[in-house]
Amino acid sequence: MNKKDSKISIIPLGGLGEVGRNMTLIEYQKKILIIDTGVGFPQEDTPGIDFVIPDVSYLKKRKEDIVGLIFTHGHYDHIGALPYLIDSIGRVPMFSSDLTRELIMRRDKEFKHRTRTEVTTVKAGQTIALAPFKITFVHQVHNIPANFGLLIETPDGNIFHTGDFKFDDDPVNDRPVDFKELERIGRKKITLLMSDSTDAEDPGHSLSERVINQNIEKVISSSSQRVVVATFASLINRIQQVITSSEKCGRRVAVIGRSMKDNVEAAQQLSYLKIKPGTLIKPEQAASLPPDRVTILCTGSQAESKAALLRIANNEDRYIKLDKGDVVAFSSSVIPGNERTVQSLKDRFYRQGLEVIHYNMMDIHAGGHARQEELAQMIQIMKPKYLMPIHGYCAMLANHKKVAMEQGMSEESVVVAENGQVVEITPQGITVGRRVVPASYVFVDGLGVGDVGEVVLRDRQNLARDGMFVIIVTINHRTGQIQDSPDIISRGFIYLRQSKQLLKETRQKVAEIVKKSTRGGRKFDVTYIKDNIKDDIGAFLFEKTERRPMVLPVVIKV
Amino acid sequence: MNKKDSKISIIPLGGLGEVGRNMTLIEYQKKILIIDTGVGFPQEDTPGIDFVIPDVSYLKKRKEDIVGLIFTHGHYDHIGALPYLIDSIGRVPMFSSDLTRELIMRRDKEFKHRTRTEVTTVKAGQTIALAPFKITFVHQVHNIPANFGLLIETPDGNIFHTGDFKFDDDPVNDRPVDFKELERIGRKKITLLMSDSTDAEDPGHSLSERVINQNIEKVISSSSQRVVVATFASLINRIQQVITSSEKCGRRVAVIGRSMKDNVEAAQQLSYLKIKPGTLIKPEQAASLPPDRVTILCTGSQAESKAALLRIANNEDRYIKLDKGDVVAFSSSVIPGNERTVQSLKDRFYRQGLEVIHYNMMDIHAGGHARQEELAQMIQIMKPKYLMPIHGYCAMLANHKKVAMEQGMSEESVVVAENGQVVEITPQGITVGRRVVPASYVFVDGLGVGDVGEVVLRDRQNLARDGMFVIIVTINHRTGQIQDSPDIISRGFIYLRQSKQLLKETRQKVAEIVKKSTRGGRKFDVTYIKDNIKDDIGAFLFEKTERRPMVLPVVIKV
Repeated sequence: MNKKDSKISIIPLGGLGEVGRNMTLIEYQKKILIIDTGVGFPQEDTPGIDFVIPDVSYLKKRKEDIVGLIFTHGHYDHIGALPYLIDSIGRVPMFSSDLTRELIMRRDKEFKHRTRTEVTTVKAGQTIALAPFKITFVHQVHNIPANFGLLIETPDGNIFHTGDFKFDDDPVNDRPVDFKELERIGRKKITLLMSDSTDAEDPGHSLSERVINQNIEKVISSSSQRVVVATFASLINRIQQVITSSEKCGRRVAVIGRSMKDNVEAAQQLSYLKIKPGTLIKPEQAASLPPDRVTILCTGSQAESKAALLRIANNEDRYIKLDKGDVVAFSSSVIPGNERTVQSLKDRFYRQGLEVIHYNMMDIHAGGHARQEELAQMIQIMKPKYLMPIHGYCAMLANHKKVAMEQGMSEESVVVAENGQVVEITPQGITVGRRVVPASYVFVDGLGVGDVGEVVLRDRQNLARDGMFVIIVTINHRTGQIQDSPDIISRGFIYLRQSKQLLKETRQKVAEIVKKSTRGGRKFDVTYIKDNIKDDIGAFLFEKTERRPMVLPVVIKV
Repeated sequence: MNKKDSKISIIPLGGLGEVGRNMTLIEYQKKILIIDTGVGFPQEDTPGIDFVIPDVSYLKKRKEDIVGLIFTHGHYDHIGALPYLIDSIGRVPMFSSDLTRELIMRRDKEFKHRTRTEVTTVKAGQTIALAPFKITFVHQVHNIPANFGLLIETPDGNIFHTGDFKFDDDPVNDRPVDFKELERIGRKKITLLMSDSTDAEDPGHSLSERVINQNIEKVISSSSQRVVVATFASLINRIQQVITSSEKCGRRVAVIGRSMKDNVEAAQQLSYLKIKPGTLIKPEQAASLPPDRVTILCTGSQAESKAALLRIANNEDRYIKLDKGDVVAFSSSVIPGNERTVQSLKDRFYRQGLEVIHYNMMDIHAGGHARQEELAQMIQIMKPKYLMPIHGYCAMLANHKKVAMEQGMSEESVVVAENGQVVEITPQGITVGRRVVPASYVFVDGLGVGDVGEVVLRDRQNLARDGMFVIIVTINHRTGQIQDSPDIISRGFIYLRQSKQLLKETRQKVAEIVKKSTRGGRKFDVTYIKDNIKDDIGAFLFEKTERRPMVLPVVIKV
């Protein structure tokens, strides 16, 4: 091998400078290993967008070189983009835990794509060879079972990728952190540690699920009425806690919401949920049981418009009707951007005289990610030559770097990269961004993937702010005279029925503009007339309203 | 006086079930006293809206009965709606502290309204008669000086309105809570306590400004480079802390951002800010001083698009340029809904290698509102017959009620009302909502007040989600035949240049629809044709894209 061949490249396609959309490539000796294919969620400035997925144009040209695709765990920010990408990357060997596989396959059924999805199941402790890589799947604790960290070995250096993790000695539904195994890995020479930064801004140690467990049990056991627990469908371990606590108190559990039911089914099928026979009931049965015998487990803790909880709050659920004194517990954090809608959902319950409990009032939610102490501990265990913080906003990556430097790592040995910036490791050192690959946002909107770009989004933002104003002018092509009065269609700008005067003046103004634009034997120029209408009417409407609707002139020659 | 005359009515026009837009009427013996006229801020579901203000239609009919308008303090959620309302309520006697008056008058200059704004200055401890009411202004500590609680006395019962308050023994720039005065008031018979609920969900006691002070000093003194502190322009006491700390460390202070400069000027003019001569410098001077001699105090902690901080982050400020290692401290909480944009602003600073400090990392921000312990203490001091929680979401009001019941108040004696629901106090008891007055949201958008309603907002939301699709068909009125190919204008739906096939199919479809709609000698019916285009093209586009743009057909007869 020549010198060049010893280079290991890390190519982040998503997950840096953002939370979600996790996808990373490891390139070595011209072969590529893919880790995760996650979706990201829409932002305030991407109205109408369903998902954001990674840009895989780099992979399209390198299909032949892909040796495999590995999933760390079954959350959508790690698996969700697969159905959109699979035709681009082609048929590659895929590996995941059994639960992750089940969640991938269930999602897959909702899509039409040409390439068949086939995933091979692997277990923690297992090692596979995808030459030139050797990958060992390592048990890690998160808030979903069957979650992996990855030891990736090459002749020129070893990488440990933590996946999503926290150090919980007393997890629910999962065996504790396997420190022995981690220490064994740490004793190998780890060239690069890629480590989860999601909670790197938070000091201390993450809350143990034991605490959450006790509190959830308290909520469920102390109520003499119905208890509704709203959480994410993906938090399998939280679902287990609610079910176990309900069983202890003699409550049956009705699971409401398609994704929740689906995940419960998947996890139960693979024995990742322990549920006594008879515990699960149908929503219609919940209605006929005494309130203190029922727990309702549902989605919608983010006040999503189509989810179960909002339906229940609006008294629109067919079976679940709540009474004064019933308890609604939000066992989830609020995703940034949803604060106000969640607040208004809570208010709806308060108005009905319900008891509302959320994680600010009592610890009934814990994140699934390592905080600063745990990140430091991971560095101590792995003693890596280099650290690359992954998964999170720049703020999180930068704070992770700070933690590492407090652990004695040098500034140069910790690399904070951006999506698309290639990190290269050679015997000479580590560099960032010498090479760059495409890593733009690809938007999914309905059936369209990538067909909504900056232009369409900017238009949506403008339309949302001040609406639009279409002016249709019919002009006699011989005389240059306007026929009839101009038609105006406007939406989102002003309530037209109450603005007759403004419309009248606008029509007059349009007529004047046309007259001026065709005056004096001037050549009949549609573009010129349209530009004049756009500019002058735009200015006129702003003067009258201080709003800037999108002015769209249509000139029809007859 | 007959029995009916002894009734005291509290009429909340804003501030209940929401944070902001505070405005309350007290009605007694047919006379009305107004407390505050605040603005509310736009929400996710009100795109393009600048402010939300209270609906004063009830007052329009009762102008003659208004005896006065009192402002508790100078924050916009208590004074901001005045310029929009003053013409509706007419010329009424207005009272406030000197600082509040100054802030009202400065804002007033930006508006054109017919009624002249005149505010009489009052001091804490002063009592005025606005028959049948007697009002005493009571010193209360908040995060702006010259802040009042109100004792409102009537022959049929006394009300104590806390205004915004917290119990801070060691406030900045203000004298401590006057517990003696509060206790003196408590010894009068207080029929109704109206008390600030903003932080009623938070257990314990609010953080003292002393702690904040120490931490801000630490941030400023420990940096050997530039320190930027971003906060709200309205937090006069925080501004004082930054200035005093900077003076201690030998730093000059450049104030950036119009509202910040304006507020500093107003407060300094009335001696509410103590600033040594020479401390304040112009931005251009900041550029020429050594970095460790400069503090930059600016607006924009919410990543507002026009504010100073974003301009600095984008390196677009004319004078302030930051270097690696400079410190940016966010001394403000994040207003719900702004989390993501604030995160991306922080990330911008991290990318430039700056040190970012925010209140999650160090206590450099404290709220200005009483927490549960302080609310309990207020109840203990006032020993009111009834409590009406004010200022806050239902969740906050309900939690305030809980606090009161823990203090021994009965469920019936605590009234949680909604905006517009009249609370009536008679010797027989207290009732809520027997009478209701209009209290809808009135939206301010540009120059328009109240002209944007539900219809316009719904249209804006729809346009933001999937854009719009205008189809213009020209039909020969004699033959019923379509002339030329239909024109299509679309924005925010799909990138048209890449969707030629879809456009082609849509045009064909439109032609078919017109043909069908005018077939067989059917009467030429424009509405019928338009409805058919709208429905069929809407369905067609959804089938092709799973998006629902607003389809707007225009039929032109020639």
